[in-house]
Amino acid sequence: MRKGNLMGVRSDIKVLDATIRDGGLCNNFEFSDEFVKALYKANVRSGIDYMEFGYKASKAMFNESEHGKWKFCNEEDLRAIVGENPSDMKIAVMADVGRCDYKTDFLPKSESVIDMVRVACYIHQIPAALDMINYFHDLGYETTCNIMAVSQASTDQINQALEMLNQSPVDVIYLVDSFGALYPENACELAKVYIAAAEKSGKSIGFHAHNNQNLAFANTIETLSYGVSYLDATVQGMGRGAGNCALESLLGFLKNPKYNLYHLLLFIENNMHQLREQGVTWGFDLHYMFTGMLNCHPREAIAFTDQKRTDYSQFYKELLDNV
Amino acid sequence: MRKGNLMGVRSDIKVLDATIRDGGLCNNFEFSDEFVKALYKANVRSGIDYMEFGYKASKAMFNESEHGKWKFCNEEDLRAIVGENPSDMKIAVMADVGRCDYKTDFLPKSESVIDMVRVACYIHQIPAALDMINYFHDLGYETTCNIMAVSQASTDQINQALEMLNQSPVDVIYLVDSFGALYPENACELAKVYIAAAEKSGKSIGFHAHNNQNLAFANTIETLSYGVSYLDATVQGMGRGAGNCALESLLGFLKNPKYNLYHLLLFIENNMHQLREQGVTWGFDLHYMFTGMLNCHPREAIAFTDQKRTDYSQFYKELLDNV
Repeated sequence: MRKGNLMGVRSDIKVLDATIRDGGLCNNFEFSDEFVKALYKANVRSGIDYMEFGYKASKAMFNESEHGKWKFCNEEDLRAIVGENPSDMKIAVMADVGRCDYKTDFLPKSESVIDMVRVACYIHQIPAALDMINYFHDLGYETTCNIMAVSQASTDQINQALEMLNQSPVDVIYLVDSFGALYPENACELAKVYIAAAEKSGKSIGFHAHNNQNLAFANTIETLSYGVSYLDATVQGMGRGAGNCALESLLGFLKNPKYNLYHLLLFIENNMHQLREQGVTWGFDLHYMFTGMLNCHPREAIAFTDQKRTDYSQFYKELLDNV
Repeated sequence: MRKGNLMGVRSDIKVLDATIRDGGLCNNFEFSDEFVKALYKANVRSGIDYMEFGYKASKAMFNESEHGKWKFCNEEDLRAIVGENPSDMKIAVMADVGRCDYKTDFLPKSESVIDMVRVACYIHQIPAALDMINYFHDLGYETTCNIMAVSQASTDQINQALEMLNQSPVDVIYLVDSFGALYPENACELAKVYIAAAEKSGKSIGFHAHNNQNLAFANTIETLSYGVSYLDATVQGMGRGAGNCALESLLGFLKNPKYNLYHLLLFIENNMHQLREQGVTWGFDLHYMFTGMLNCHPREAIAFTDQKRTDYSQFYKELLDNV
């Protein structure tokens, strides 16, 4: 049932670094240009396949002066970092259903340094996601559909969503464990459902983990072993709340010699401690474990962090009251 | 192939808290009596099946004045904490092959509050372990054999060790991932080998994880799903180097209503920050990830921690030279 083994290379594997995008949720996307440039260079040297720079958020809904530039990913801001992107690494951005003016904010692929647009949606928003996917495909972009919060979706919903996506031009369908609620066992069962559906249409499956139960890396390598091929990770797991799969763990695991852990280590040594010193916080902690266990949105746990609370047992009781 | 499922209860599961024993390796076993008493009470209230108090180390080899009392687990020290242990929770201690005067330092079970002796050995020490197991069994104790560092053992060695243990009176055979080198995939393959062997003799299989690659919890719940039933964990993963499977993660996962996370949370809130404030360190970090990836002893990584080094990339290069 597993595809490949722990010794070999799977040529279908693609690693996507989502540090600026998911990590940007921790610091309002306010990374310095030096940081983003250094990460871009480190990712190229480390053999990363895709680097996601941020969101293409609606400027009608969000004020550009109130957020870092990577919430909007203007073409000129991307080019200030990557130039013409003279590398094998592709550039991705995320477009949220309902929070993106996609008909005005995207250039044709031929005029943009962006390679891939990742459309994020909840499962009831698949029709809206399909409109966007068709539009981006026609512009010439690679596309993904990142179906969030699948741990709360029913089997019927998932099957119907996969059927609808199979009939679209989308390239990659992502299983997104938004709440960090999945264990390796059910993450793999879900991944098998996605993989079986995608085999009919020749599409690839991706996995985006959250680390609420300290299982982000484990779920990523377990689902990959059954045939997931697009793997999201972030440097030191930087991402909202408990964060994501750590890119350094993933590169340490993958056997393809194109991936080089050393350059990523240099980046971490030289850049990541500054974020921590600025007070940017993320990562596994008890209160995120609770929301993962209870399969609920981490918003209360993020508030617990923001309020610098340490009364874990009281917070656990509050969550049990709310579930 | 899996035994049970994510919704149900497996009545064969036993949880062993090894905080004082494996965690004692982080602070030279110098826990206050208040700490150990509070943990004992919390474990009883949390439904923990076994609590391991420490080692029975040779007083000829180790000076009692140079180590905390839990390196020796004198009967009177145990009784000062647990009295006659009027609870359903059993008391375990560990005896290391070659570092334990077992013929003089153990009372008959009928005179001791200890219930279980866990014999730790490397795979080439199985004959010595068998002598000890027979001796402890004759004294009336439950016994385990914890075969350490199996990630470096050959399949032949493992099969022969299991065969020898199958012919002994040992109750539980432990798969010990001393280097935190196993991934869920090969941890489960190894566990299946242990389980298949033990089914012939009616013995149980245990798993003791280390968190070098942030996989301790994942490997514990994955191997349990294939039939491992004795599960080691420590509070907040406290243990040598990268530490162990976190007890709170494990209790959050298990569905048996006998396990109660809340009392453990109270213990954590009231007691664990003091250890951190005393400068006791453990837990996942990059340098432990390297030794896990490279399947080697964490001694260099522990020295890296002790020297307060942060030059991860240099350390990684040094390890690659040494492997």
